[in-house]
Amino acid sequence: MTDTRAPYRRVRVARVGRAAAGSADDVAAAEEPLEVRLHGRSFAVIMRTPGADRELAAGFLLSESVIRTYDDIGAVEHCRHPDHPEVHNVVDVYLTGEAAGALDARLEQRRNILTSSSCGLCGRVTIDSLRLSAAPLRGSERMDWMLAASLPQRLRERQAVFDETGGLHAAGLFTMDGDCEAAAEDVGRHNAVDKVIGARLLDDRVPLTGRALLVSGRASFEIVQKAWLGGVAIVGAVSAPSSLAIELAEEAGITLLGFVRDGGFNLYTHPARILGV
Amino acid sequence: MTDTRAPYRRVRVARVGRAAAGSADDVAAAEEPLEVRLHGRSFAVIMRTPGADRELAAGFLLSESVIRTYDDIGAVEHCRHPDHPEVHNVVDVYLTGEAAGALDARLEQRRNILTSSSCGLCGRVTIDSLRLSAAPLRGSERMDWMLAASLPQRLRERQAVFDETGGLHAAGLFTMDGDCEAAAEDVGRHNAVDKVIGARLLDDRVPLTGRALLVSGRASFEIVQKAWLGGVAIVGAVSAPSSLAIELAEEAGITLLGFVRDGGFNLYTHPARILGV
Repeated sequence: MTDTRAPYRRVRVARVGRAAAGSADDVAAAEEPLEVRLHGRSFAVIMRTPGADRELAAGFLLSESVIRTYDDIGAVEHCRHPDHPEVHNVVDVYLTGEAAGALDARLEQRRNILTSSSCGLCGRVTIDSLRLSAAPLRGSERMDWMLAASLPQRLRERQAVFDETGGLHAAGLFTMDGDCEAAAEDVGRHNAVDKVIGARLLDDRVPLTGRALLVSGRASFEIVQKAWLGGVAIVGAVSAPSSLAIELAEEAGITLLGFVRDGGFNLYTHPARILGV
Repeated sequence: MTDTRAPYRRVRVARVGRAAAGSADDVAAAEEPLEVRLHGRSFAVIMRTPGADRELAAGFLLSESVIRTYDDIGAVEHCRHPDHPEVHNVVDVYLTGEAAGALDARLEQRRNILTSSSCGLCGRVTIDSLRLSAAPLRGSERMDWMLAASLPQRLRERQAVFDETGGLHAAGLFTMDGDCEAAAEDVGRHNAVDKVIGARLLDDRVPLTGRALLVSGRASFEIVQKAWLGGVAIVGAVSAPSSLAIELAEEAGITLLGFVRDGGFNLYTHPARILGV
C-alpha cells in the first residue's frame, strides 16, 4: 500500500485538446480523512492532505474552542492501526487542566447542537452566536503596504507541492518584516490555516501577536474566525473575501486585505495597521 | 436591515497599489448561515450565499443520504422569524414514507458518529465507509470532447453575480447537447453543487441520467460523492481533482475531467463517455 503520508499521488491522465495530447503520468494532490480524537473518543473527521497532522489537529481544536492555549495540550499523538502501520489517519489529543475538565461538557455540547430545536439560529442571532466570545484584537503591529503586497510571492517560495499538482491551497504566517515563520498546503484552505496556526500553538507561540496570515483563494467567515482565535491581527487573501468575513474582521479588530495580487490589494477593515496607504 | 436574500453586499474598500487607487464602493459575495431543519429539529448549519435555499437544503439532504428520491420529500419550507421577517436563514424539511420513518434513527446516528470510539476510521476502512453504498453508474451517455471543453464558457454565460464580486463558485448541469439545465453560485463550491442537484431533485428529475456536472474550482471527494448520489455520470472541474476524487470516480463509474480550460482538459476515469479522444 502507498505510504499515506505523501502529499500527492501519481495518477494516469489522458490530455485532451492540448498541444501535448495523449496519455501521460501526472500527480494529484492527496486527500485522505483524518480522524481527530479526544482522549480516544472520536471528535471529528477532516478531509485533508496528509502532512502536519498534529499541527492540523491542534489548530482545528483551537478554532473549535476546545483548547485556548498551549497549556491545555497534554499530548498530540499519531495513532497507528496495528494491522496497517503504513496508515497515519488518526491523531489522538490529550487535554490537561481546565480543557480536560470541560471535555465531557464539550462533547455533549457538540452532540446537542445537532438536536437543538431552539429558534436561536434565525438570522442575526445565528451570526452573533457563531461569532465567538473572543475580545477584539488591539495589537499595534504595522506592515508596509508594499511588503503586504509581496506576501503571495513570499508564500509561493515556501510552497513545496503546489506547482506540481495545481490542487493545493496554501497558508503562511509572516512577521512584520515579511519573514515566513510557518507555511502549509492542503486541499482545504481551512486546513492549511489550521496547520500553520496549530504549528505555532504546539510551539507555545499563540496568541500570534505581530504576525500576518496569508491564504491562497478566498477569505470566508471561518478563515477570519480562525485568525481571531489565533490572535492574528492582519489577514490577507489572494482572492475575494465574503461579506461575513468582512463583517467579522470589523468586529474582531482584524485588518483584512483581499485580492492581494499583481502588486496591490483591497483593504476592507482597520486600515491603520498598513503603512503608506 | 438589509434583505438577507441578496447574493452580494455593498462594501467600502481602499484600493492599494492599483492604477485606480483610493477609497471606492465595491461588492462582496454574501455569506450567511442557513439552518436546515428536519421536522422542526435542527440538523445542520451551512454557511452559504443566500438564494436557492430550498434547493440547497434538498441537495444537501440527498448528499447526506437523508433522502434518496423526490418521493421522500413532503415539504421544503422557508421558516421566517416572527420578529425578523426580513431574515430567511432557516429551511424546514418534512419527509414522507420511508425517509420519515428513518428520521429518528438518522438523527441518532448523526449524534453517535461524534462520540464513537471504534477504530473503524483508521485508513482504508474510513475511506470505504465514507464511500456510500450506491451502485456504480453505468449510463451510456456520450459527450463530444469539444463540447465538454466548452462547458466553462457555457456556465459563465449563466452566472449572474460572479463577475461582480469575484468571490463565488459556480456549478452547472448540462445535457449532452450542452444545454445548461440548472446553474447556481455560492461562496461554497459544495453548496453550488447541492443547489443545482437539489433544484432538479425538487422537480423529480433525480437520478440525473444523461447529464454532466461542471464546477468552478477543484474536484474533491465530496463533489464526486454528491454527483454519484445524484446519478450524474460526467463530472468536470475547472481546476485540479484530488487523489480521492479520482479514486472515488473510478469506483463510482463516473467520467472525471479536470483542468477544463483553454479548450481542453485532463481525463482521469472512464473515458468511454467522451467522444473523439
